[in-house]
Amino acid sequence: MTAAYDALRSHLHKAHLLASTSALLVWDQETYLPKGGGDVRADQLALLAELQHERATDPRVGDWLAACETDARLQHDADAIANVRGWRRDFDRATKLPSKLVQELAEVESKAQQAWAEARARDDWRKFRPWLDRMLSLQQQKADCLKAPGQSRWDALADLYEPGMNAAMLRELFAPLRQALVALRQKLATGTAPDDAFQRLPIEQTQQEAFVRAVLAAMGFEERFGRLDRSAHPFCTKVGADVRLTTRFHPDNVLDALGSTMHEGGHGLYEQGFEPAHFGTPLAEAVSLGIHESQSRLWENHVGRSAAFWQWCWPVAQKHLGSKTQGFTQEQVFRTANLVQPSLIRVEADEATYDLHVMVRFELEQALIDGQLGTGDLPHHWNRLYYEYLGIAVPDDKQGVLQDVHWSCGLFGYFPTYTLGNLYAAQFAAAADKALGGLPGLLERGQFATLREWLRRQIHRHGRRHTPAELCQLVTGAPLSSAPFLAYLEQKLAVVYGL
Amino acid sequence: MTAAYDALRSHLHKAHLLASTSALLVWDQETYLPKGGGDVRADQLALLAELQHERATDPRVGDWLAACETDARLQHDADAIANVRGWRRDFDRATKLPSKLVQELAEVESKAQQAWAEARARDDWRKFRPWLDRMLSLQQQKADCLKAPGQSRWDALADLYEPGMNAAMLRELFAPLRQALVALRQKLATGTAPDDAFQRLPIEQTQQEAFVRAVLAAMGFEERFGRLDRSAHPFCTKVGADVRLTTRFHPDNVLDALGSTMHEGGHGLYEQGFEPAHFGTPLAEAVSLGIHESQSRLWENHVGRSAAFWQWCWPVAQKHLGSKTQGFTQEQVFRTANLVQPSLIRVEADEATYDLHVMVRFELEQALIDGQLGTGDLPHHWNRLYYEYLGIAVPDDKQGVLQDVHWSCGLFGYFPTYTLGNLYAAQFAAAADKALGGLPGLLERGQFATLREWLRRQIHRHGRRHTPAELCQLVTGAPLSSAPFLAYLEQKLAVVYGL
Repeated sequence: MTAAYDALRSHLHKAHLLASTSALLVWDQETYLPKGGGDVRADQLALLAELQHERATDPRVGDWLAACETDARLQHDADAIANVRGWRRDFDRATKLPSKLVQELAEVESKAQQAWAEARARDDWRKFRPWLDRMLSLQQQKADCLKAPGQSRWDALADLYEPGMNAAMLRELFAPLRQALVALRQKLATGTAPDDAFQRLPIEQTQQEAFVRAVLAAMGFEERFGRLDRSAHPFCTKVGADVRLTTRFHPDNVLDALGSTMHEGGHGLYEQGFEPAHFGTPLAEAVSLGIHESQSRLWENHVGRSAAFWQWCWPVAQKHLGSKTQGFTQEQVFRTANLVQPSLIRVEADEATYDLHVMVRFELEQALIDGQLGTGDLPHHWNRLYYEYLGIAVPDDKQGVLQDVHWSCGLFGYFPTYTLGNLYAAQFAAAADKALGGLPGLLERGQFATLREWLRRQIHRHGRRHTPAELCQLVTGAPLSSAPFLAYLEQKLAVVYGL
Repeated sequence: MTAAYDALRSHLHKAHLLASTSALLVWDQETYLPKGGGDVRADQLALLAELQHERATDPRVGDWLAACETDARLQHDADAIANVRGWRRDFDRATKLPSKLVQELAEVESKAQQAWAEARARDDWRKFRPWLDRMLSLQQQKADCLKAPGQSRWDALADLYEPGMNAAMLRELFAPLRQALVALRQKLATGTAPDDAFQRLPIEQTQQEAFVRAVLAAMGFEERFGRLDRSAHPFCTKVGADVRLTTRFHPDNVLDALGSTMHEGGHGLYEQGFEPAHFGTPLAEAVSLGIHESQSRLWENHVGRSAAFWQWCWPVAQKHLGSKTQGFTQEQVFRTANLVQPSLIRVEADEATYDLHVMVRFELEQALIDGQLGTGDLPHHWNRLYYEYLGIAVPDDKQGVLQDVHWSCGLFGYFPTYTLGNLYAAQFAAAADKALGGLPGLLERGQFATLREWLRRQIHRHGRRHTPAELCQLVTGAPLSSAPFLAYLEQKLAVVYGL
């Protein structure tokens, strides 16, 4: 390569090492850190963030980037072009924010999160509202620093998580989807709901754990480069060369443990699927949160909630869960896993109503950030949209507008990536089904390696080489659409609900 | 305080945060890191070490120190005086080594360690010898940078681990101790050796773990600020505000698990015993490796191998280890825990022969560093001293000169701190016995808190306020001597061996 390119790579490789060290600090915080270690952990994280930001915004990075962008020798190297494009995007984003704003955001994020936790515990919206106001004002300032001429504030924030996506495109995707999902919800009410007894079955945690570990291993999650632990909220993070997943166990809901493990396992396969040679560069990083979520939802739902999967999985479940599984059939458990029940809480939502929760948040936060809505009426509008989309009345703010941590952490423009993940997942699953001569045949025989390798080849190994939109076109031959998702859902639920 | 003092404290607090982050990286490496994560982990550690060194040797530290040392306002504040003295010592040590030498040492340490591991596995001394030669030459260069006028090279290195200690003082302590230990070994051969059946009893790991956790909790190790995990080699490290211990379990040696846990637990109580207000300063750091080791050996041996302790511990062991303990008595197990058997391997040595292993290493490494001995004859001299001190013939280098990792890691001047720990431990235990009206009475009732609080008050809370020699004088009213250790050992083993 050229001197500038090598300097850039080596300089940013160290920023990457700092970021992965921070990832270990967070992983440990959520898994093994003794309670008394929390304050110092916050100081360690703040210091690492400061050092990483210093390195990422070093003016020499700008000089090296300019040198690379004008060097003809690099224009024929596709890897170099993709890396330089990624580094440029990161550098511009990092340098556009004045450090005073970055510090103020960090401080308010930490305090607003505490205020949110207290407000939620006491169901006291008024305690959180002034913090949300302050956070909104800072996010608007942040958006003003980031936004291109003519771009809306919300669009500038959303682009951080899903490059190239904006509110207008989302509205076009979401409007027909919402109508169809509301119609589906009403239609299912006329069908036969699955029995949920399997979901209420008390099972020893050690048995649940042995079961989900067997499934994770079958998915092809590599133990040499990863591990599975427990935490209150399941997550996936990469700590250098190895990927850490967490899951959780309820005394009586093994399907939740399975779903969480397959979900995080899908994220983990993505992170394990980058080319090792590109470690520490954009070519070994996730292209967007939506694509990341597509990998988790594909394994959690398209695999883990399919009839074919349960053909393979039921004997595995019986082996690990023991006598408790007597009296149930694979058919029953498949149906239970696909129970649809409109509910108040997004993180507990089923496949058919989950996106309606996301749309409520999308509409509200876009109006908040772009100034069409103030926080005074927020709980009212939240409750109104829940009734309209999900057909349920919100009894209190704790189960309503205060349920998610995101806004208190400054995550605006983030929620839609959950639904984008669902849409990408369905479109990728349909493409895989076609390319591999039928997914059900593979799943019922437990041949997950074929699917995993296809995903690795088609999606994982590219890292940030393409934009999400380009990747979708490349993998599926079409732009993103909600049609594959709706077709998949309607077909499966018609079987489950006997329609 | 003064502006310079505050600047120093805040600047070095960040160096401390980096060091504790490195401690987490190492802890994770030894406990939970998947195999494939090793290479990136080495890069993360090297980067953190570089950043920490940069910060510790920042020329502003020298300026702030000079300002503090000449500021009359600080001369009446005992805490400030102690911290400035500690920071000065650290700064001088860090800045005396040219960064080229530091880098070369880091590289050779890493490679020599790999060469050592291979050489030991193949019992091939010739594979390691060139690396030891290279390491010795670098250590001599390091000593030349560090040593005061008239100071020997080995003394300069030893002072890194035990401030104020030198080879002449050690020889004076060790010569009579060695004679007495050799005589004791010969005398014990005429007594009745304890039966070792309890040491060979197969016990489930979960039972062993429940047992050692109960003992650790009784010692007063605080769960809110610490945890216990497993690793191949037990260790203790502080990760910010919390202390991480590890232990190990053999299928058939619960006394090893107990000893390791109490040993690391003693280290852990020291680290948990600093004043939280001094976090990140020398007043909340260990004064020396010898004092650190005294805390681990006091709990492992003076508590854990005493007859009084087993009076309390036997019912606890019976409860957790179950039916396997039937047929044994507390008296038998106490005697088994005190079995003396000269052996080849230091880390497996008993209380009465351990220090003879240390003395072999001390004599050899001092002669290597100060130039009286070359590596060509090293195995020969190793084997000769083992026969002379321990009365055993070394069958191969794997179990001889190649057994320890220390020299390959560049740890010269370090071994004697193990024996210093034993001597300090005995002298502290005798002082505690006197001050608390008899230790056995407390131990047999499980009143460990009284001992722990005495250690905290007398030793832990001082951090680096005093030198090790001052601390010994303050706590025990006398300079360090081998007499309390010998008296303790001879008295206990006379009972065990029926002499």
